[in-house]
Amino acid sequence: MTHPLPTLSIARAGTQDSLPGPTGWFTGQVRIDPLFTAAPPATGSGALVTFEPGARTDWHVHPLGQVLIVTAGCGRVQQWGAPAQTLHPGDVVSIPAGVKHWHGAAPATAMSHIALQEQRAGQVVEWLEKVSDAQYAPA
Amino acid sequence: MTHPLPTLSIARAGTQDSLPGPTGWFTGQVRIDPLFTAAPPATGSGALVTFEPGARTDWHVHPLGQVLIVTAGCGRVQQWGAPAQTLHPGDVVSIPAGVKHWHGAAPATAMSHIALQEQRAGQVVEWLEKVSDAQYAPA
Repeated sequence: MTHPLPTLSIARAGTQDSLPGPTGWFTGQVRIDPLFTAAPPATGSGALVTFEPGARTDWHVHPLGQVLIVTAGCGRVQQWGAPAQTLHPGDVVSIPAGVKHWHGAAPATAMSHIALQEQRAGQVVEWLEKVSDAQYAPA
Repeated sequence: MTHPLPTLSIARAGTQDSLPGPTGWFTGQVRIDPLFTAAPPATGSGALVTFEPGARTDWHVHPLGQVLIVTAGCGRVQQWGAPAQTLHPGDVVSIPAGVKHWHGAAPATAMSHIALQEQRAGQVVEWLEKVSDAQYAPA
């Protein structure tokens, strides 16, 4: 019995369906465009995520952290216990393993970012509570 | 003795110097814009790589594979023993661990891609021989 050699593959633009961000994990209108799931033994995965104005993730943590590469618009990221920070295209956010945080659009402007994360024991994220309006846009 | 809590960090656009692609590993004019090195225990790293027309990597393999997200222009990727394939923006290339390959611009058009790879025992790439002009642009 022979085993096939591993082969380079190309996911062409337009061949991976856009998905809505599940309301169980996001507030507002969010679109997820899948990019890749790395071939084992690598464990990384990535997606382009687009948040309409006011939209954001729920609070969450990643067992091996996450990297965000902002590609368009203007958004926000916040670590639990620290002030929110504004994000612009070209900014790269590094979120260490276990750091509770959220990210999303600004109140009046959309944001798109590439989100990258590796997995530990098959897990890439642990979802927590929603980001309340008071947390998102303090008076 | 206390340990500092891990902290989310942002590398702002314009704060990470562009680097020339070393001539020992590339042919032609190549610019590397570093994006991130993931915080341990994650092992991923990423950079935006821009190849001027005709420029390309040398042949190489990655111990845990590589993913390329094409962001601009028109380029090529080739696995050893297979024909070169043309790349356009939005294409996502998955290169499994150990697969010998090269990537770069088309002869008359530049290409930019985000390159992502995880490391094994501290290694992300093994560089091999250069891509000859005959391999790059067969008559």
